[in-house]
Amino acid sequence: MSKEESTAPNTASDQVADITKGVQDVILGEDGKPLSKKALKKLEKEREKEAKKQERMARDAAERAAREAAEVDYAVDNYGNPGINMSQKKSDTKWTAVKDLSASMADQVVNIQARVQTSRPTGNKMCFLVLREATATVQALLVVNKDSISKQMVKFASSIPSESIISVSAKVVLPNEPVKSCTVGDVELHVSKLFIISEVTVPLPFSIADASHSPQDYEEDPSLNRVMLDTRLNGRVIDLRTITNNAIFKIQAAVCQLFREYLINDGVTEIHSPKIISTASEGGSNVFKISYFKRFAYLAQSPQLYKQACIAADFGKVFEIAPVFRAEDSNTHRHLTEYVGLDLECVFREHYHEIMYMIGDMFVYIFKNLETRWAHELEIVRRQYPSEPLKYSEKPLRLEYKDAVALLRKHGEEIGDFDDLSTPQERLLGELVKKEYDTDFYMLDKFPLAVRPFYTMPDPTDSNYSNSYDFFLRGQEIMSGAQRIHDPKLLRERIKALEIDATPLEDYIKGFEYGCSPHAGGGVGLERVVMFYLGLDNIRLTSLFPRDPKRIDP
Amino acid sequence: MSKEESTAPNTASDQVADITKGVQDVILGEDGKPLSKKALKKLEKEREKEAKKQERMARDAAERAAREAAEVDYAVDNYGNPGINMSQKKSDTKWTAVKDLSASMADQVVNIQARVQTSRPTGNKMCFLVLREATATVQALLVVNKDSISKQMVKFASSIPSESIISVSAKVVLPNEPVKSCTVGDVELHVSKLFIISEVTVPLPFSIADASHSPQDYEEDPSLNRVMLDTRLNGRVIDLRTITNNAIFKIQAAVCQLFREYLINDGVTEIHSPKIISTASEGGSNVFKISYFKRFAYLAQSPQLYKQACIAADFGKVFEIAPVFRAEDSNTHRHLTEYVGLDLECVFREHYHEIMYMIGDMFVYIFKNLETRWAHELEIVRRQYPSEPLKYSEKPLRLEYKDAVALLRKHGEEIGDFDDLSTPQERLLGELVKKEYDTDFYMLDKFPLAVRPFYTMPDPTDSNYSNSYDFFLRGQEIMSGAQRIHDPKLLRERIKALEIDATPLEDYIKGFEYGCSPHAGGGVGLERVVMFYLGLDNIRLTSLFPRDPKRIDP
Repeated sequence: MSKEESTAPNTASDQVADITKGVQDVILGEDGKPLSKKALKKLEKEREKEAKKQERMARDAAERAAREAAEVDYAVDNYGNPGINMSQKKSDTKWTAVKDLSASMADQVVNIQARVQTSRPTGNKMCFLVLREATATVQALLVVNKDSISKQMVKFASSIPSESIISVSAKVVLPNEPVKSCTVGDVELHVSKLFIISEVTVPLPFSIADASHSPQDYEEDPSLNRVMLDTRLNGRVIDLRTITNNAIFKIQAAVCQLFREYLINDGVTEIHSPKIISTASEGGSNVFKISYFKRFAYLAQSPQLYKQACIAADFGKVFEIAPVFRAEDSNTHRHLTEYVGLDLECVFREHYHEIMYMIGDMFVYIFKNLETRWAHELEIVRRQYPSEPLKYSEKPLRLEYKDAVALLRKHGEEIGDFDDLSTPQERLLGELVKKEYDTDFYMLDKFPLAVRPFYTMPDPTDSNYSNSYDFFLRGQEIMSGAQRIHDPKLLRERIKALEIDATPLEDYIKGFEYGCSPHAGGGVGLERVVMFYLGLDNIRLTSLFPRDPKRIDP
Repeated sequence: MSKEESTAPNTASDQVADITKGVQDVILGEDGKPLSKKALKKLEKEREKEAKKQERMARDAAERAAREAAEVDYAVDNYGNPGINMSQKKSDTKWTAVKDLSASMADQVVNIQARVQTSRPTGNKMCFLVLREATATVQALLVVNKDSISKQMVKFASSIPSESIISVSAKVVLPNEPVKSCTVGDVELHVSKLFIISEVTVPLPFSIADASHSPQDYEEDPSLNRVMLDTRLNGRVIDLRTITNNAIFKIQAAVCQLFREYLINDGVTEIHSPKIISTASEGGSNVFKISYFKRFAYLAQSPQLYKQACIAADFGKVFEIAPVFRAEDSNTHRHLTEYVGLDLECVFREHYHEIMYMIGDMFVYIFKNLETRWAHELEIVRRQYPSEPLKYSEKPLRLEYKDAVALLRKHGEEIGDFDDLSTPQERLLGELVKKEYDTDFYMLDKFPLAVRPFYTMPDPTDSNYSNSYDFFLRGQEIMSGAQRIHDPKLLRERIKALEIDATPLEDYIKGFEYGCSPHAGGGVGLERVVMFYLGLDNIRLTSLFPRDPKRIDP
């Protein structure tokens, strides 16, 4: 789109021509009869008067047009498109982020670089802009004045395509009343300079406004456009620009940051285990196969065996944040083929509860800090996706599996003592626990041995159960963990009992034959934590560029 | 290995039988003739005396053995192998880490869990152990006393296979002189209780001692075993146990931690971009191909296009720490097929130097904090791999490419104005820069456009050059970066000029057509930074489980 878009309206002289067109014909009065001489004379006078007026108007308009065309635009240095920034210059200009604008800066002139979310001219002397940078929006306006802002400049501002990026110099002004439609509502910007940094050159697949509606918006106006998930994901680079999505990914980053803060403070060492592995070592066919020079290799389904190798290698306590690959053909709202695993594995001294409770405390640390340090982002997400703040206790609730089974049975569920929980049962359990204990977060301990992987340590008193746990958030699993078998003899027994091929596991078992401390750990799905924490209904909303069996683009 | 290993020595009565064996034969004197009667009588007496003595000794020994066998081992509760820890119990025992032991704890009784690096009995009443936990070692000893430590207990301690894990209760004692062979030298532990936590059950592929020798050790004793790199890597779980390797990976974790600390503090957001991609989008054939359900996909060579998409999506400044995959058949000391990329990409306001200098300052922050906060680990690594501390200036040195070319030519190198640097030239340049500027770290700016990727922004005044830079550490490249082309028209021109197929790049280019801020960034190889920082000679030493064209195990 360019500045030529506004087609010229009919000119004043065109209008005059229309009016005088009928004069040569016989003229009839309102009663349908020819007019009297007197009446004709009067009409003639009126016509002359009108014609003169039109002439004058036409002359004025023509002069104005000529003047405008000829006149030196006194604002010409204050706006424009300077072309591609190839780092031609450096200056000591101070730049301000939109989110940092505040009433305390009133009357200061600030420099901003931001997107034009909308541009709305009012007459030809004024233009309102909504400027957006990441999770912040602010209202800006240009008003013609005789020193620095010309009509040409206002026209230029009005014609900037939405989503273009501009730089402005502007005075911070306190508005008469707060600008409710912007996140920064207590100030507005009176622009004095405006330059294009990057102009949008193609139509957008959907508008940022349409991608930003909340359920309440649709309630108030059901005719609003809806952007379907697939459309959003196909145009993810646009979709991610909404302040909501910007905030979701700030929260995703925050979860990682807080996970690390807690663990590093606790003496846990970060590791990076290989993702290319030689065999589908954890069993199961859900691994992706790679061509690796003249042979094949596989993508790691989890860092499980490697993080345990680090325990056998005396790393003590380790964590890893890395992609995890699952070749499961599951097309659900909560499965991805590639997700971010937050894994940890820790030596304990006496009992695996040392680690289980540490992980519980870590989650409480994450939840608590999200609420305080990321309050702004949470508020923004909840505008579009309303959710109740998470309920949890300072010391996380621990439930035993058998008690959960009893609770479910009490409420009419049919479930065997050693059966795994189905997804609906997990949700129901979440509701029952919420009702009884007023918490959205709890740890379910002592799972049946039969439903856990081969490397899970059996319970010492009842081998139907195991030293393993899942953590639940709003009734859905976010972490699975356990004490692992560190004794090679017992490990081989379990491998044999489960009829697993031990051959690809020999390196792993060797680690324990060389001596290994008792240890426990767990694996967290980052996207799931963010999804359930924010009460979102699809995991694709919390993955930057989601991957599922049908999607590997963009 | 178990307690039965010591085979019973000849008993005292066996010895008596030996001695009396010759009595029935003719007895010759020292001169070879039969003995006189007197002499025979004397001999007879001596024999009787000897026989009585032997009998007495045999009786004593038998009694002692019987007593030992029968007697209640008064230390029996203080040692042993309690079997597999399946989290049978919890106590409020306080545990101390070996690295935290200090002279200020003298006379306290501490509880330790650690590996037995060596166990050395002295007589049958004393045993010295070297205990190791992560990067710390300490000397411990058991001495028989009549209350709590029996000979059986000392024998038990002496027979623990190396690399087994034990728990001990011990008094912290100040030794007469520092124990130089241990990292914690100012105290030793007088053990009162000792239990096996995990016993080594198979022979180790090599010893920790052999894997820990320094060049100086070999100089002093050239007969010391050398463990070849392949042997180490095959038995990586043992190799990683050396205090040196434990320290190397603490430093690797520290580099990531400091990278993040600096960037998060600077408002940079962490992202997680997909590793499974639909096309080999960055061109080049060096990508691994994956079977992805009923089609093919590829492993990302870098997060380049995705981190730029995040810039187009208004994330402002982003970083990522994630695996990077390169299907290059390079079998060198500095190439891996999978490594950890520290990537960043940032919007700038006016000039790409804003970002280049920020990255420079970030490296200075990393180097400085490694020296202070990880001094212990650095010292440990330098014991086995001596290196000079890194030299660098507070404000990193910036050199222009053309000046580097001039410097090389001045020293006899043949290199064209727009040629890329060869690895030997990089090293030579490093030496020349060190000589001239006394720094091991510098930024080389303004590379020839021809040697950089298609998305590199040309220099605004001379399009033979570009707004791009490499960072060097001890004469080797650790980071490559540039201002990227954010203008879609210019980007298409460059793609066309380089005869690259634009089809798989359409999503990428669209991001810029939708409007994008000027931005710059770079990619750092984690293993390279650690390798060159520590002055190591092979990148496999700084990768937990290295992957190269020939190795994907363990």
